Amino acid sequence: MRWIDAIRETFERYGYVNIETPSVEEVETLAAKGGDVDKEIYGLQRLNADGDEKGARLALHFDLTVPTARYVAQHFNDLTFPFKRYQIQRVWRGERPQEGRFREFLQCDVDVIDQDGISHDFDAEIPLIALQALNAVGAGPVRFMLNNRKILIGFYRGLGIENAGDVIRVVDKIDKLPVTEIERILVEDLGLAIETAKACLALAQIRSTDNGFANAARKLGVKNELFEEGLTELTTVMDRLNAADIGESVVEANLAIARGLDYYTGVVYEVQLIDYPEYSTICAGGRYADLVGAYIKRDLPGVGISIGLTRLFAKLVKEGKITAERASPTDVLIARFAENDVLELDAVANALRARGINVEVYHEAAKLKNQFRYAERKAIPYIWFTGDAHEVKDLGAGEQAEADPASWLPARLKS
Amino acid sequence: MRWIDAIRETFERYGYVNIETPSVEEVETLAAKGGDVDKEIYGLQRLNADGDEKGARLALHFDLTVPTARYVAQHFNDLTFPFKRYQIQRVWRGERPQEGRFREFLQCDVDVIDQDGISHDFDAEIPLIALQALNAVGAGPVRFMLNNRKILIGFYRGLGIENAGDVIRVVDKIDKLPVTEIERILVEDLGLAIETAKACLALAQIRSTDNGFANAARKLGVKNELFEEGLTELTTVMDRLNAADIGESVVEANLAIARGLDYYTGVVYEVQLIDYPEYSTICAGGRYADLVGAYIKRDLPGVGISIGLTRLFAKLVKEGKITAERASPTDVLIARFAENDVLELDAVANALRARGINVEVYHEAAKLKNQFRYAERKAIPYIWFTGDAHEVKDLGAGEQAEADPASWLPARLKS
Repeated sequence: MRWIDAIRETFERYGYVNIETPSVEEVETLAAKGGDVDKEIYGLQRLNADGDEKGARLALHFDLTVPTARYVAQHFNDLTFPFKRYQIQRVWRGERPQEGRFREFLQCDVDVIDQDGISHDFDAEIPLIALQALNAVGAGPVRFMLNNRKILIGFYRGLGIENAGDVIRVVDKIDKLPVTEIERILVEDLGLAIETAKACLALAQIRSTDNGFANAARKLGVKNELFEEGLTELTTVMDRLNAADIGESVVEANLAIARGLDYYTGVVYEVQLIDYPEYSTICAGGRYADLVGAYIKRDLPGVGISIGLTRLFAKLVKEGKITAERASPTDVLIARFAENDVLELDAVANALRARGINVEVYHEAAKLKNQFRYAERKAIPYIWFTGDAHEVKDLGAGEQAEADPASWLPARLKS
Repeated sequence: MRWIDAIRETFERYGYVNIETPSVEEVETLAAKGGDVDKEIYGLQRLNADGDEKGARLALHFDLTVPTARYVAQHFNDLTFPFKRYQIQRVWRGERPQEGRFREFLQCDVDVIDQDGISHDFDAEIPLIALQALNAVGAGPVRFMLNNRKILIGFYRGLGIENAGDVIRVVDKIDKLPVTEIERILVEDLGLAIETAKACLALAQIRSTDNGFANAARKLGVKNELFEEGLTELTTVMDRLNAADIGESVVEANLAIARGLDYYTGVVYEVQLIDYPEYSTICAGGRYADLVGAYIKRDLPGVGISIGLTRLFAKLVKEGKITAERASPTDVLIARFAENDVLELDAVANALRARGINVEVYHEAAKLKNQFRYAERKAIPYIWFTGDAHEVKDLGAGEQAEADPASWLPARLKS
């Protein structure tokens, strides 16, 4: 929970508001985005359905983008645009039984949606927020890779390619397949001339942490208005990111990044952990034009990014970069003996609690050994002994000293 | 979220640890508790299931008790007992389509589970924590009603009744049916003698905010060991609750409280809002003997309580007892004009954010009127003007003054 709190705090520092939407939506709503996502959807059915079920079929959401689009359409008249929101919720994706019986993830999305166009400011703000959020959870340095779909589509059109979308889907596999195989698919399967295919691959190999990418791309000799527009947009974003303090993380214009989903129309993002390049993308997103348009006849473009928290946390814990939660939030265990009156122990506990200290009163009069073992197993740092003079034992330091319930503080709360 | 934070903080003050469990469990696990709960369960099915689905059937959990029991059984060797945990998650209950297409709630449970018996201390600690949690969210005064199943079962057995469980289920309806109707059911449907039925009803009408309930119950003349044990246990709990500061809330021994579910074996709880008696129970629980036993051959009794947060919040907001969330967490909007460099505005924003202030930079150079309207609609309290001398306008007070980004604080952070 403290990781999630750190992320929430980051988003709120930038004025983003938290929303939650139901986990259950109508199947028609979830399927509105098109494509073949529906194979990943878990439908719901009452176990004792008696055959007279009527109305819409229900299913669990598989991402937070679609429910947010539905939410914006539904609350259109009550929202102030640009609508800046974050959302941290579980999502579900159906998997074939042999690959695992079910899949349930904690997803974290931050998006801005505006009416009739959206400021290019947000193309840079979203990465800045995501970088801060990843930093706040101790993810370690990341490689934040950016591209712009306009660069790709404009370049392909400038080369005379008509099916730019098909080329994007092939080039998107550049990290998974050898370059020669990508070239073969472009030529043999998509029918591109060999020089055209080589130009596409040359573009996809351009990387720069500064604005060098733009000149490198222009040197390939393709002239196209959309291509130029994309280069200019990405240059502006890179300038703003390079002006920010992002610690050891790296911001990289990477002209191979395509993001498979068709709905992106401008900047796209893909983020990896630098220390663990073998891990796949932990965070991805971009600018989209008409997601909300599927639910309301309005022009409501957006920019956003999504962090897969379950995967990220599992990896960070496994690599020892962050520790799992404590076994207990307790600061102090109040020891209890046969001669103690539980109401008096309660009074001491409440005096401490009132000052923000987490306290347990041991639940029965027991041998001191048992009470120490309980504290040790739960990693509780202090044991408190009541009496005319109260005493506290610091189990880490092994020291015991007098303490006043009205003023004593554990190390956690001293600063 | 701030309500939930307040609840979490309360539980942690008492040393309870947060756990989360998957929303999806095997149907067999969910059904292990017995009874006819399965009619409320939503089963899951991949929409594009291809007919070769194998393995366990999956469903969404309908409460947090069953998943916790499964969790304790599964992690038995890693847990320290008594295991004190809280859990705040969504739960789902299938409903007939005509009553509403789906039901999704936020549930909040706090429980202690121990091995081979559990201290009666927790019979009182659980109500104390629940009272504090309800107070922390501003629920207003509550009527916290307690009974003990041993009082009921012992009394019925002392009267020679064999099917005590059936009588409990009938007496449980005392708030919904006229007393004469309850009496008729006990006599005609359950075959009780008229005097026996009247004795059951006399017991059910006993209430006291102190320990008067015990003598009132004894005066009914029934002798039974279990009955006495229940009276003693409830007296101890009432003593501890009456020694605590619970503000305007009322603690009441109420010998009509039965809780329909069969698994309770000792103290039972039921909580209502005093100002809105027409609202049904907002919180309920009790002591149970063998919930975990359905999943592991161990004796793991527990005591716990469950708060229905979605219903509670909906009611409190409707009654105006608490306000809905702010439209935005933003403290300050930094105004933006054509002559401003966004990187300089970013620097001011970041200086403020570093000190815990939530800041938005307006997303484009725009007419001041538009920027004021944006702040007003989002209830942002301050607008910041950059320049050689920075100035801040307090939109509530209507005052504008010079401010230093390195030291200025909004009212929210002054204390």
